[in-house]
Amino acid sequence: MRVLAQRPSRILGVDPGSSVTGFGVVERRGAQIRHVAHGTLRPARGASLAERLAVIQAGLAGAIAAHRPEVAVIERVFAGRSARSALVLGHARGVALATAAAAGLAVCEYTAPEIKLAVAGSGAAQKRQVQAMVARLLALEACPAFDAADALAAALCHAHRGPLAALAAAASGRRRAAAHGAGRLVVRRAR
Amino acid sequence: MRVLAQRPSRILGVDPGSSVTGFGVVERRGAQIRHVAHGTLRPARGASLAERLAVIQAGLAGAIAAHRPEVAVIERVFAGRSARSALVLGHARGVALATAAAAGLAVCEYTAPEIKLAVAGSGAAQKRQVQAMVARLLALEACPAFDAADALAAALCHAHRGPLAALAAAASGRRRAAAHGAGRLVVRRAR
Repeated sequence: MRVLAQRPSRILGVDPGSSVTGFGVVERRGAQIRHVAHGTLRPARGASLAERLAVIQAGLAGAIAAHRPEVAVIERVFAGRSARSALVLGHARGVALATAAAAGLAVCEYTAPEIKLAVAGSGAAQKRQVQAMVARLLALEACPAFDAADALAAALCHAHRGPLAALAAAASGRRRAAAHGAGRLVVRRAR
Repeated sequence: MRVLAQRPSRILGVDPGSSVTGFGVVERRGAQIRHVAHGTLRPARGASLAERLAVIQAGLAGAIAAHRPEVAVIERVFAGRSARSALVLGHARGVALATAAAAGLAVCEYTAPEIKLAVAGSGAAQKRQVQAMVARLLALEACPAFDAADALAAALCHAHRGPLAALAAAASGRRRAAAHGAGRLVVRRAR
Protein backbone atom coordinates (compact mmCIF):
# COMPACT_ATOMS: atom_id res chain seq x y z
CA MET A 1 0.00 0.00 0.00
CA ARG A 2 2.74 2.44 0.95
CA VAL A 3 4.65 1.58 -2.20
CA LEU A 4 1.62 2.35 -4.37
CA ALA A 5 1.12 5.67 -2.61
CA GLN A 6 4.71 6.71 -3.28
CA ARG A 7 4.80 5.71 -6.94
CA PRO A 8 3.90 8.68 -9.14
CA SER A 9 0.75 8.12 -11.11
CA ARG A 10 -0.69 10.25 -13.88
CA ILE A 11 -4.36 10.93 -14.20
CA LEU A 12 -6.14 12.20 -17.31
CA GLY A 13 -9.38 14.11 -16.84
CA VAL A 14 -11.68 14.55 -19.84
CA ASP A 15 -14.66 16.87 -20.29
CA PRO A 16 -16.16 15.67 -23.57
CA GLY A 17 -18.28 17.77 -25.91
CA SER A 18 -18.74 17.72 -29.67
CA SER A 19 -17.88 21.44 -29.93
CA VAL A 20 -15.16 21.64 -27.28
CA THR A 21 -13.52 18.77 -25.41
CA GLY A 22 -11.29 19.67 -22.48
CA PHE A 23 -8.53 17.51 -21.09
CA GLY A 24 -6.08 17.82 -18.25
CA VAL A 25 -3.32 15.67 -16.81
CA VAL A 26 -2.10 15.76 -13.21
CA GLU A 27 0.55 13.67 -11.48
CA ARG A 28 0.22 12.33 -7.95
CA ARG A 29 3.29 11.34 -5.98
CA GLY A 30 2.32 10.39 -2.44
CA ALA A 31 0.31 13.29 -1.09
CA GLN A 32 1.67 15.71 -3.69
CA ILE A 33 -0.26 16.53 -6.82
CA ARG A 34 1.23 18.53 -9.66
CA HIS A 35 -0.03 19.84 -12.96
CA VAL A 36 1.32 18.16 -16.09
CA ALA A 37 -0.71 19.55 -19.00
CA HIS A 38 -4.12 20.68 -20.09
CA GLY A 39 -5.81 21.81 -23.26
CA THR A 40 -8.92 21.90 -25.38
CA LEU A 41 -9.82 20.16 -28.63
CA ARG A 42 -11.88 22.41 -30.89
CA PRO A 43 -12.88 20.76 -34.17
CA ALA A 44 -13.62 23.20 -37.00
CA ARG A 45 -17.15 24.57 -36.78
CA GLY A 46 -18.06 23.61 -40.34
CA ALA A 47 -16.98 19.99 -39.86
CA SER A 48 -19.53 17.18 -39.81
CA LEU A 49 -20.22 15.32 -36.57
CA ALA A 50 -18.09 12.35 -37.71
CA GLU A 51 -15.22 14.67 -38.53
CA ARG A 52 -15.46 16.45 -35.19
CA LEU A 53 -15.50 13.14 -33.33
CA ALA A 54 -12.42 12.00 -35.25
CA VAL A 55 -10.61 15.19 -34.15
CA ILE A 56 -11.53 14.41 -30.52
CA GLN A 57 -10.35 10.80 -30.89
CA ALA A 58 -7.02 11.86 -32.42
CA GLY A 59 -6.52 14.65 -29.90
CA LEU A 60 -7.14 12.46 -26.86
CA ALA A 61 -5.01 9.64 -28.26
CA GLY A 62 -2.25 12.22 -28.80
CA ALA A 63 -2.54 13.55 -25.24
CA ILE A 64 -2.42 9.99 -23.87
CA ALA A 65 0.66 9.17 -25.97
CA ALA A 66 2.39 12.40 -24.90
CA HIS A 67 1.68 12.23 -21.15
CA ARG A 68 1.15 8.52 -20.49
CA PRO A 69 -1.56 8.62 -17.82
CA GLU A 70 -2.66 5.31 -16.25
CA VAL A 71 -6.18 6.40 -15.36
CA ALA A 72 -8.80 8.40 -17.25
CA VAL A 73 -11.49 10.22 -15.30
CA ILE A 74 -14.71 11.34 -16.89
CA GLU A 75 -17.84 12.85 -15.42
CA ARG A 76 -20.64 10.36 -14.88
CA VAL A 77 -23.74 11.65 -16.59
CA PHE A 78 -27.38 10.92 -16.06
CA ALA A 79 -30.04 11.09 -18.68
CA GLY A 80 -31.92 13.85 -16.91
CA ARG A 81 -31.34 16.09 -19.91
CA SER A 82 -33.40 16.10 -23.07
CA ALA A 83 -33.05 13.13 -25.42
CA ARG A 84 -31.54 15.47 -28.02
CA SER A 85 -28.71 16.74 -25.81
CA ALA A 86 -28.16 13.26 -24.33
CA LEU A 87 -27.64 11.89 -27.86
CA VAL A 88 -25.15 14.64 -28.77
CA LEU A 89 -23.23 14.32 -25.49
CA GLY A 90 -23.26 10.54 -25.81
CA HIS A 91 -21.37 10.70 -29.11
CA ALA A 92 -18.41 12.68 -27.71
CA ARG A 93 -18.44 10.80 -24.42
CA GLY A 94 -18.40 7.44 -26.21
CA VAL A 95 -15.35 8.49 -28.21
CA ALA A 96 -13.54 9.62 -25.03
CA LEU A 97 -14.32 6.38 -23.18
CA ALA A 98 -13.32 4.16 -26.12
CA THR A 99 -10.09 6.07 -26.75
CA ALA A 100 -9.06 5.81 -23.09
CA ALA A 101 -9.91 2.12 -22.78
CA ALA A 102 -8.28 1.30 -26.14
CA ALA A 103 -5.05 2.87 -24.84
CA GLY A 104 -5.17 0.55 -21.82
CA LEU A 105 -6.20 3.17 -19.25
CA ALA A 106 -8.48 2.29 -16.35
CA VAL A 107 -11.56 4.50 -16.58
CA CYS A 108 -13.16 6.05 -13.47
CA GLU A 109 -16.36 8.06 -13.34
CA TYR A 110 -17.50 10.59 -10.75
CA THR A 111 -20.67 12.62 -10.63
CA ALA A 112 -20.50 16.40 -11.13
CA PRO A 113 -21.27 17.07 -7.42
CA GLU A 114 -18.46 14.68 -6.37
CA ILE A 115 -16.00 16.53 -8.61
CA LYS A 116 -17.14 19.99 -7.47
CA LEU A 117 -17.04 18.94 -3.84
CA ALA A 118 -13.50 17.60 -4.22
CA VAL A 119 -12.04 20.76 -5.75
CA ALA A 120 -14.28 23.60 -4.53
CA GLY A 121 -15.63 22.26 -1.24
CA SER A 122 -19.25 22.32 -2.44
CA GLY A 123 -21.16 19.98 -4.70
CA ALA A 124 -23.09 22.97 -6.03
CA ALA A 125 -20.07 25.15 -6.90
CA GLN A 126 -20.33 27.42 -9.96
CA LYS A 127 -18.21 26.93 -13.08
CA ARG A 128 -16.09 29.99 -12.22
CA GLN A 129 -15.41 28.75 -8.70
CA VAL A 130 -14.24 25.38 -10.04
CA GLN A 131 -12.03 27.17 -12.57
CA ALA A 132 -10.47 29.42 -9.91
CA MET A 133 -9.92 26.57 -7.45
CA VAL A 134 -8.30 24.37 -10.10
CA ALA A 135 -5.90 27.20 -10.96
CA ARG A 136 -5.12 27.71 -7.26
CA LEU A 137 -4.73 24.03 -6.32
CA LEU A 138 -2.37 23.45 -9.24
CA ALA A 139 -0.64 26.86 -8.91
CA LEU A 140 -1.38 27.75 -12.53
CA GLU A 141 -0.35 31.21 -13.69
CA ALA A 142 -3.56 31.67 -15.70
CA CYS A 143 -7.06 30.26 -15.36
CA PRO A 144 -7.60 27.40 -17.81
CA ALA A 145 -10.56 27.55 -20.21
CA PHE A 146 -13.78 26.20 -18.62
CA ASP A 147 -13.64 22.87 -20.44
CA ALA A 148 -9.98 22.30 -19.53
CA ALA A 149 -10.67 23.40 -15.94
CA ASP A 150 -13.52 20.87 -15.68
CA ALA A 151 -11.22 18.17 -17.03
CA LEU A 152 -8.48 19.07 -14.51
CA ALA A 153 -11.13 19.11 -11.76
CA ALA A 154 -12.15 15.55 -12.67
CA ALA A 155 -8.50 14.45 -12.56
CA LEU A 156 -8.01 16.23 -9.21
CA CYS A 157 -11.12 14.57 -7.78
CA HIS A 158 -9.60 11.17 -8.48
CA ALA A 159 -6.13 12.24 -7.30
CA HIS A 160 -7.62 13.31 -3.95
CA ARG A 161 -9.04 9.85 -3.40
CA GLY A 162 -5.51 8.63 -2.71
CA PRO A 163 -4.06 5.15 -2.97
CA LEU A 164 -7.34 3.33 -2.35
CA ALA A 165 -8.76 4.75 -5.56
CA ALA A 166 -5.53 3.82 -7.33
CA LEU A 167 -5.91 0.22 -6.14
CA ALA A 168 -9.52 0.11 -7.32
CA ALA A 169 -8.56 1.60 -10.68
CA ALA A 170 -5.73 -0.92 -11.08
CA ALA A 171 -8.16 -3.76 -10.32
CA SER A 172 -10.65 -2.37 -12.84
CA GLY A 173 -7.78 -2.13 -15.35
CA ARG A 174 -7.03 -5.84 -14.86
CA ARG A 175 -10.70 -6.69 -15.26
CA ARG A 176 -10.75 -4.49 -18.35
CA ALA A 177 -7.81 -6.30 -19.92
CA ALA A 178 -9.46 -9.66 -19.20
CA ALA A 179 -12.83 -8.59 -20.56
CA HIS A 180 -11.18 -7.10 -23.63
CA GLY A 181 -9.72 -10.44 -24.58
CA ALA A 182 -13.09 -12.09 -24.12
CA GLY A 183 -14.92 -9.81 -26.59
CA ARG A 184 -16.38 -11.90 -29.37
CA LEU A 185 -15.96 -11.00 -32.99
CA VAL A 186 -18.15 -12.91 -35.41
CA VAL A 187 -17.29 -12.39 -39.03
CA ARG A 188 -18.66 -13.85 -42.20
CA ARG A 189 -16.57 -13.22 -45.27
CA ALA A 190 -17.61 -13.41 -48.88
CA ARG A 191 -18.53 -16.90 -49.88
CA MET B 1 -19.60 10.12 -64.56
CA ARG B 2 -19.45 6.85 -66.49
CA VAL B 3 -15.96 6.23 -65.20
CA LEU B 4 -17.09 6.65 -61.60
CA ALA B 5 -20.01 4.30 -62.15
CA GLN B 6 -17.70 1.61 -63.50
CA ARG B 7 -15.05 1.85 -60.81
CA PRO B 8 -15.75 -0.62 -58.01
CA SER B 9 -16.43 1.06 -54.72
CA ARG B 10 -16.78 -0.54 -51.32
CA ILE B 11 -19.36 0.56 -48.83
CA LEU B 12 -19.34 -0.20 -45.11
CA GLY B 13 -22.67 -0.22 -43.29
CA VAL B 14 -22.67 0.00 -39.50
CA ASP B 15 -25.49 -0.66 -37.04
CA PRO B 16 -24.02 0.55 -33.74
CA GLY B 17 -25.05 -0.62 -30.29
CA SER B 18 -23.16 -0.99 -27.04
CA SER B 19 -24.23 -4.65 -26.69
CA VAL B 20 -24.05 -5.68 -30.35
CA THR B 21 -22.67 -3.68 -33.28
CA GLY B 22 -23.33 -5.04 -36.75
CA PHE B 23 -21.26 -4.28 -39.81
CA GLY B 24 -21.42 -5.23 -43.45
CA VAL B 25 -19.40 -4.45 -46.55
CA VAL B 26 -20.72 -4.52 -50.12
CA GLU B 27 -18.98 -3.70 -53.37
CA ARG B 28 -20.60 -1.80 -56.21
CA ARG B 29 -19.25 -2.09 -59.73
CA GLY B 30 -21.49 -0.23 -62.15
CA ALA B 31 -24.98 -1.57 -61.60
CA GLN B 32 -23.71 -4.73 -59.90
CA ILE B 33 -23.57 -5.04 -56.15
CA ARG B 34 -21.87 -7.93 -54.41
CA HIS B 35 -21.42 -9.01 -50.81
CA VAL B 36 -17.92 -8.72 -49.39
CA ALA B 37 -18.24 -9.42 -45.66
CA HIS B 38 -20.42 -8.95 -42.62
CA GLY B 39 -20.23 -9.62 -38.93
CA THR B 40 -21.13 -8.58 -35.42
CA LEU B 41 -19.01 -7.19 -32.60
CA ARG B 42 -20.15 -8.51 -29.23
CA PRO B 43 -18.14 -7.14 -26.32
CA ALA B 44 -18.14 -9.37 -23.21
CA ARG B 45 -21.27 -8.83 -21.12
CA GLY B 46 -19.36 -8.13 -17.90
CA ALA B 47 -17.19 -5.47 -19.52
CA SER B 48 -17.56 -1.80 -18.56
CA LEU B 49 -19.02 0.66 -21.06
CA ALA B 50 -15.53 2.03 -21.87
CA GLU B 51 -14.25 -1.50 -22.49
CA ARG B 52 -17.21 -2.36 -24.71
CA LEU B 53 -16.73 0.82 -26.74
CA ALA B 54 -13.03 0.03 -27.17
CA VAL B 55 -13.99 -3.40 -28.56
CA ILE B 56 -16.32 -1.70 -31.06
CA GLN B 57 -13.62 0.80 -32.06
CA ALA B 58 -11.03 -1.95 -32.58
CA GLY B 59 -13.49 -4.19 -34.42
CA LEU B 60 -14.61 -1.50 -36.85
CA ALA B 61 -11.04 -0.30 -37.43
CA GLY B 62 -10.13 -3.93 -38.16
CA ALA B 63 -13.02 -4.37 -40.61
CA ILE B 64 -12.03 -1.13 -42.39
CA ALA B 65 -8.39 -2.24 -42.61
CA ALA B 66 -9.40 -5.66 -43.92
CA HIS B 67 -11.95 -4.58 -46.53
CA ARG B 68 -10.92 -1.00 -47.37
CA PRO B 69 -14.32 0.64 -47.94
CA GLU B 70 -14.37 4.28 -49.10
CA VAL B 71 -17.73 5.15 -47.59
CA ALA B 72 -19.33 4.38 -44.25
CA VAL B 73 -23.11 4.40 -43.95
CA ILE B 74 -24.86 4.70 -40.63
CA GLU B 75 -28.50 5.13 -39.74
CA ARG B 76 -29.48 8.71 -38.98
CA VAL B 77 -31.16 8.81 -35.58
CA PHE B 78 -33.52 11.26 -34.05
CA ALA B 79 -33.84 11.96 -30.38
CA GLY B 80 -37.42 10.77 -30.25
CA ARG B 81 -36.39 8.05 -27.83
CA SER B 82 -35.94 8.49 -24.11
CA ALA B 83 -32.92 10.52 -22.91
CA ARG B 84 -31.53 7.34 -21.31
CA SER B 85 -31.57 5.26 -24.50
CA ALA B 86 -30.39 8.26 -26.57
CA LEU B 87 -27.34 8.60 -24.30
CA VAL B 88 -26.49 4.89 -24.56
CA LEU B 89 -26.97 4.78 -28.33
CA GLY B 90 -24.97 8.01 -28.69
CA HIS B 91 -21.89 6.40 -27.13
CA ALA B 92 -21.70 3.53 -29.62
CA ARG B 93 -22.72 5.73 -32.55
CA GLY B 94 -20.05 8.30 -31.70
CA VAL B 95 -17.38 5.61 -31.69
CA ALA B 96 -18.56 4.30 -35.08
CA LEU B 97 -18.61 7.78 -36.65
CA ALA B 98 -15.18 8.74 -35.25
CA THR B 99 -13.59 5.44 -36.30
CA ALA B 100 -14.89 5.78 -39.87
CA ALA B 101 -13.88 9.43 -40.22
CA ALA B 102 -10.47 8.81 -38.63
CA ALA B 103 -9.84 6.11 -41.25
CA GLY B 104 -10.56 8.67 -43.99
CA LEU B 105 -13.97 7.32 -45.01
CA ALA B 106 -16.73 9.63 -46.16
CA VAL B 107 -19.71 9.16 -43.84
CA CYS B 108 -23.29 9.10 -45.14
CA GLU B 109 -26.44 8.90 -43.06
CA TYR B 110 -29.90 7.68 -44.06
CA THR B 111 -33.04 7.45 -41.97
CA ALA B 112 -34.43 4.03 -41.03
CA PRO B 113 -37.42 4.41 -43.45
CA GLU B 114 -35.02 5.32 -46.30
CA ILE B 115 -32.96 2.18 -45.64
CA LYS B 116 -36.01 -0.08 -45.31
CA LEU B 117 -37.56 1.36 -48.44
CA ALA B 118 -34.36 0.77 -50.41
CA VAL B 119 -34.02 -2.90 -49.51
CA ALA B 120 -37.55 -4.08 -48.70
CA GLY B 121 -39.72 -1.73 -50.77
CA SER B 122 -41.44 -0.27 -47.71
CA GLY B 123 -40.27 2.29 -45.17
CA ALA B 124 -42.21 0.40 -42.50
CA ALA B 125 -40.73 -3.06 -43.21
CA GLN B 126 -40.22 -5.38 -40.24
CA LYS B 127 -36.75 -6.48 -39.05
CA ARG B 128 -37.33 -10.01 -40.43
CA GLN B 129 -38.33 -8.68 -43.86
CA VAL B 130 -35.17 -6.54 -44.01
CA GLN B 131 -33.09 -9.55 -42.98
CA ALA B 132 -34.68 -11.80 -45.62
CA MET B 133 -34.38 -9.19 -48.38
CA VAL B 134 -30.73 -8.51 -47.59
CA ALA B 135 -29.97 -12.24 -47.80
CA ARG B 136 -31.86 -12.44 -51.12
CA LEU B 137 -30.39 -9.30 -52.72
CA LEU B 138 -26.85 -10.40 -51.84
CA ALA B 139 -27.52 -14.11 -52.54
CA LEU B 140 -26.33 -15.14 -49.09
CA GLU B 141 -26.62 -18.79 -48.15
CA ALA B 142 -27.79 -17.98 -44.63
CA CYS B 143 -29.65 -15.05 -43.10
CA PRO B 144 -27.23 -12.72 -41.32
CA ALA B 145 -27.88 -11.82 -37.67
CA PHE B 146 -30.29 -8.87 -37.29
CA ASP B 147 -27.57 -6.34 -36.50
CA ALA B 148 -25.39 -7.43 -39.41
CA ALA B 149 -28.46 -7.49 -41.71
CA ASP B 150 -29.28 -3.91 -40.69
CA ALA B 151 -25.69 -2.88 -41.40
CA LEU B 152 -25.77 -4.56 -44.82
CA ALA B 153 -29.14 -2.89 -45.50
CA ALA B 154 -27.60 0.54 -44.78
CA ALA B 155 -24.72 -0.23 -47.16
CA LEU B 156 -27.18 -1.46 -49.82
CA CYS B 157 -29.28 1.69 -49.45
CA HIS B 158 -26.23 3.78 -50.33
CA ALA B 159 -25.14 1.40 -53.11
CA HIS B 160 -28.57 1.73 -54.75
CA ARG B 161 -28.17 5.49 -54.94
CA GLY B 162 -25.63 5.00 -57.70
CA PRO B 163 -22.86 7.25 -58.90
CA LEU B 164 -24.55 10.50 -57.83
CA ALA B 165 -24.31 9.43 -54.20
CA ALA B 166 -20.69 8.41 -54.79
CA LEU B 167 -19.93 11.88 -56.15
CA ALA B 168 -21.58 13.51 -53.15
CA ALA B 169 -19.71 11.23 -50.76
CA ALA B 170 -16.42 11.99 -52.47
CA ALA B 171 -17.11 15.72 -52.19
CA SER B 172 -17.97 15.31 -48.51
CA GLY B 173 -14.73 13.34 -48.09
CA ARG B 174 -12.78 16.26 -49.57
CA ARG B 175 -14.58 18.70 -47.27
CA ARG B 176 -13.87 16.33 -44.41
CA ALA B 177 -10.14 16.25 -45.13
CA ALA B 178 -10.06 20.04 -45.33
CA ALA B 179 -12.06 20.50 -42.13
CA HIS B 180 -9.91 17.92 -40.36
CA GLY B 181 -6.80 19.97 -40.98
CA ALA B 182 -8.53 23.06 -39.66
CA GLY B 183 -9.39 21.52 -36.26
CA ARG B 184 -7.75 23.53 -33.55
CA LEU B 185 -5.80 21.94 -30.73
CA VAL B 186 -4.97 24.26 -27.86
CA VAL B 187 -2.55 22.79 -25.36
CA ARG B 188 -0.92 24.18 -22.28
CA ARG B 189 1.92 22.13 -20.94
CA ALA B 190 3.40 22.17 -17.47
CA ARG B 191 5.03 25.46 -16.63
